[in-house]
Amino acid sequence: MNNIILYNYFRSSTSYRVRIVLHHKEIPFEYKAVHLLEGGGQQHKQDYLAINPIAEVPSLVHNDKVIAQSFAIIEYLEEVFPQHSIFPKDLHTKAVVRQFCENINSSAHPYQNLKTLQYLEKHAGFTDSQKSAWVSNWASLAFAATERLLEKHSGQFCFGDQVTAADVFLVPQVFSAKRFNVDLTSFSKVVQISENAERLDAFQKAHPNNQPDTPK
Amino acid sequence: MNNIILYNYFRSSTSYRVRIVLHHKEIPFEYKAVHLLEGGGQQHKQDYLAINPIAEVPSLVHNDKVIAQSFAIIEYLEEVFPQHSIFPKDLHTKAVVRQFCENINSSAHPYQNLKTLQYLEKHAGFTDSQKSAWVSNWASLAFAATERLLEKHSGQFCFGDQVTAADVFLVPQVFSAKRFNVDLTSFSKVVQISENAERLDAFQKAHPNNQPDTPK
Repeated sequence: MNNIILYNYFRSSTSYRVRIVLHHKEIPFEYKAVHLLEGGGQQHKQDYLAINPIAEVPSLVHNDKVIAQSFAIIEYLEEVFPQHSIFPKDLHTKAVVRQFCENINSSAHPYQNLKTLQYLEKHAGFTDSQKSAWVSNWASLAFAATERLLEKHSGQFCFGDQVTAADVFLVPQVFSAKRFNVDLTSFSKVVQISENAERLDAFQKAHPNNQPDTPK
Repeated sequence: MNNIILYNYFRSSTSYRVRIVLHHKEIPFEYKAVHLLEGGGQQHKQDYLAINPIAEVPSLVHNDKVIAQSFAIIEYLEEVFPQHSIFPKDLHTKAVVRQFCENINSSAHPYQNLKTLQYLEKHAGFTDSQKSAWVSNWASLAFAATERLLEKHSGQFCFGDQVTAADVFLVPQVFSAKRFNVDLTSFSKVVQISENAERLDAFQKAHPNNQPDTPK
């Protein structure tokens, strides 16, 4: 029996990634919402810090054992639930898929994280337009690299015609970019492939608009 | 025959990670230095952008095929050169090792990246002391989470008495933290384990002080 709990937040793009993988692999899970803003953020409360001391979502609990960090969770799900694999078999292509994911995970996402923007507002007096310029700068650098990889590897999805981890990272990043009004006109493949993937059932089920904690 | 080229920079902590793994696994490689400051940064030149369009080090070329992003490179090296494995066999512990690595890779390192600090200086007028406070804030959050994981899992090294990817990420992060004068007094396990690992031959060979492009 698999007992899986996902601590997450509807709009968090890292949570969105893990939800896509769970739905894509048809793994049932219990959804536990962690509201990142309410009362200063539920992720900072003692009961959540006991689960994840870095005060971030998502965290996944599988048979009472905790894993945090979305990419670590996704690699774990792939290893424990190999059905509907999200990595190519060829080891070099698999590495390039991971490179694609890290372009988003470590070279774009941290800059748009809620706590990053809160720091810049509090300690550097960033206005909304300065925050947008900041997010756009890093998102655009990552999308430019991503676009180059897509020109080389994409089919219907990021790497050929099968869903891979690359799609799992791309779709939430495009969702966030739209929220921050990042100009996507130079990244036509990014936009097109993201739309292709977003139409799939697993991606729809995982979408921030369709979660238990999505505001009505 | 394995033909491996590592494009990297002596002081880059992400380059340092990959060098540790190459030496730990005793994989011969050709060292190509990419000077991140000289002439505005060699990583921005056309010939390097053809290798890695995101303009970052390290990049690894194996039999003429390129991989970028240090974590993607390290996972690839583990898969293609399984000797002296850097991941535990137990899948949950392996996931927690990856979580540990991502606490550094995506939750600490991007904030201290050269280009991040250059942006904050240029666009937000950050002084040296503001840059130090910024780096310290994120490094300390990550080290606090890391310290909690070490209390639970460490032996001589981060996870028991065998070198894992966690040590590969920890040692360069501690090296960078010292450069930025991050206060490490609350993180005694982090400091102790990092010193244990740093004494190993592979870690010494990979150290920023001992590279072909290290200034005399």
